[in-house]
Amino acid sequence: MKRLLIFLVLASLTLTSAAQGRRNFARSEFPKVNDDNSITFLLMAKDAKKVSVVGDFSLENGKERRHFEMQPTEQGLWRVTTPPLRPEIYSYNFIIDGVRTCDALNMMQLRDGENHFSAVIVGGGQADLYKVQQTPHGTLHTIWYPSPTLNMQRRMTVYTPAGYAESRKKLPVLYLLHGMSGDETAWAELGRTAQIMDNLIAQGKCREMIVVMTNGNAWQQCAPTHNGGRAMQQYRNGEQGAPTFVDSFGDVIAYVEKNFRVLKKAQYRAIAGLSMGGGHSFAISRRYPRTFDYVALFSAAVRGFNDEQVQAELKAQRDNGLKLYWIACGKDDFLYKLNCDYMQYLDSISMPYTWRESDGGHTWRNWRIYLSELVPMLFQE
Amino acid sequence: MKRLLIFLVLASLTLTSAAQGRRNFARSEFPKVNDDNSITFLLMAKDAKKVSVVGDFSLENGKERRHFEMQPTEQGLWRVTTPPLRPEIYSYNFIIDGVRTCDALNMMQLRDGENHFSAVIVGGGQADLYKVQQTPHGTLHTIWYPSPTLNMQRRMTVYTPAGYAESRKKLPVLYLLHGMSGDETAWAELGRTAQIMDNLIAQGKCREMIVVMTNGNAWQQCAPTHNGGRAMQQYRNGEQGAPTFVDSFGDVIAYVEKNFRVLKKAQYRAIAGLSMGGGHSFAISRRYPRTFDYVALFSAAVRGFNDEQVQAELKAQRDNGLKLYWIACGKDDFLYKLNCDYMQYLDSISMPYTWRESDGGHTWRNWRIYLSELVPMLFQE
Repeated sequence: MKRLLIFLVLASLTLTSAAQGRRNFARSEFPKVNDDNSITFLLMAKDAKKVSVVGDFSLENGKERRHFEMQPTEQGLWRVTTPPLRPEIYSYNFIIDGVRTCDALNMMQLRDGENHFSAVIVGGGQADLYKVQQTPHGTLHTIWYPSPTLNMQRRMTVYTPAGYAESRKKLPVLYLLHGMSGDETAWAELGRTAQIMDNLIAQGKCREMIVVMTNGNAWQQCAPTHNGGRAMQQYRNGEQGAPTFVDSFGDVIAYVEKNFRVLKKAQYRAIAGLSMGGGHSFAISRRYPRTFDYVALFSAAVRGFNDEQVQAELKAQRDNGLKLYWIACGKDDFLYKLNCDYMQYLDSISMPYTWRESDGGHTWRNWRIYLSELVPMLFQE
Repeated sequence: MKRLLIFLVLASLTLTSAAQGRRNFARSEFPKVNDDNSITFLLMAKDAKKVSVVGDFSLENGKERRHFEMQPTEQGLWRVTTPPLRPEIYSYNFIIDGVRTCDALNMMQLRDGENHFSAVIVGGGQADLYKVQQTPHGTLHTIWYPSPTLNMQRRMTVYTPAGYAESRKKLPVLYLLHGMSGDETAWAELGRTAQIMDNLIAQGKCREMIVVMTNGNAWQQCAPTHNGGRAMQQYRNGEQGAPTFVDSFGDVIAYVEKNFRVLKKAQYRAIAGLSMGGGHSFAISRRYPRTFDYVALFSAAVRGFNDEQVQAELKAQRDNGLKLYWIACGKDDFLYKLNCDYMQYLDSISMPYTWRESDGGHTWRNWRIYLSELVPMLFQE
């Protein structure tokens, strides 16, 4: 009876398309996280010949995503249950006869660059940091700032912790940068920055701080999804010329320090980024000397350290002294060797750093973990 | 050659799934808005038997969405071009052998309640209000407030106009409410509130104001997409008991007036809402007498006006006097007759109101138009 009900409801879903007012029981059940932390997926596709779920269910070995073939059950319904999974935010698509889609039964989607994924949280452990818990909550500001260097207005996302508006306290700032194909929405959406910060602050595990999430694509005003139409067009002419995002970073700092109640010394500024954003952090922390006492590189594209100019800047950075230079990378990351080579160079000039090797590859799973490990180390006096 | 390139790129898209770093020419071209304002869609689905695009391309006649069958072209590629369309934000899905999906070539998606749609803007005319233009831009705050009445923290979205942070000026407030299956993200995403406000303020067509977009589902803390997993579960027990959202609205006003720099008199407060949110505005504006001098009902569910208590409150509202009581509805809206009946009642008690009849039905197209027409009328001294 229940199955019949599900079938009838699902059948009606694919036949109607008005968006308002539809409520039903079946949609609330799938994807279903079972008691053993496996997930059961359900799909209605009565004319399909082959259906699978593909997602980041197994990222220990780097970037490979795992496929589960779905089995036809009653008329037109396909179903599969994964093995038990560890706590995490999982993103996935269905592949229906070769066409990649999201899960119409699941309201939660994440966009990673050009691609939309359905998402499901298996709670517990680390993943509880990614959930909205019963703590005080900070505010996310979607805000525009002028960049005279790039001659445009640009969008950023700023996290202020709970109580910021009512307090008169000045706070330290973490600048947090995304990777290639990301934008100013990436850390808040995929990185769950607000939830991680809310939870760690509430647990007393990190200081209150402001987190500034920029758009590192110098040719973009804002996320290409935000202004409609042929959004990807902006990528076509996307080769970085001069001036670059790194050149413009002074505009970001100037805006934040004018418009937020912040502490304006190097010991209260941190910069961190993933992949391309790790490369940006590597560059910006040298380019703006004595500005950041905390630097963190997540799976970073630390390119160019054989260059003489870069080496001179790194030596100056070493001599200026830092409180933390944190390098994190997964063993299966395609940038792992580059980071090892970079650390060998840092050893050769006796520049201190802290190395955090993890399992896994070039994935948001790792970047969320790195963020949650980094912030407790920041701004400790 | 170009077609071959497109085919190869698209084929590779469906076969790979890593999200990072993929840039190509083809994705930037589709959906393509042609010079005559028709749209060309492209889809790769080599094993499909029947594919169509369905979207709100023709909403003059109410809620019906329009289908365009796609034609197979070279191997696995499907294509269709719509007739010329008027300027608008269009939302659409592909139906591939009965399965509704979004357009993987289009980064822009909108969520309307439980459903995700791809979206494309055909610019010009009214639709230029929906685009990010070269104007100063306001800030969107994703913020949590305490609701003692509902005994939970709840999320809202607040628009502050450009310059708010630097100014000392106190501003009037528009409270803007969503419909059934919507939440605190609906007006900003589907309603393009920030763009409409930025553009109208820049054109000198409306006053600077703060816009507060609440979550009107009393059983929810925030959009169900925001906290992962079986998001729709919250809908199951979603019947409104007591206390209701209307009961709790005093918590919203108290929070806004404490935490934003606002003018705290009825002549500087407006409340507007669509559908269920129109019903909320209808109720809240009576329940909190002498609080709002401006009330606007968009396609509103104005239920219960035969009730004695409601009628007594309406007469009190009439006697208190209002600067504007605006009722807007489309001729094809399923709530059109209800609104006409309501106005007949208002006539019978000589309560003044302004009637805005439009074409079309119960659609975001109309609600964006109504918002853009309403705000120039607000807070004019």
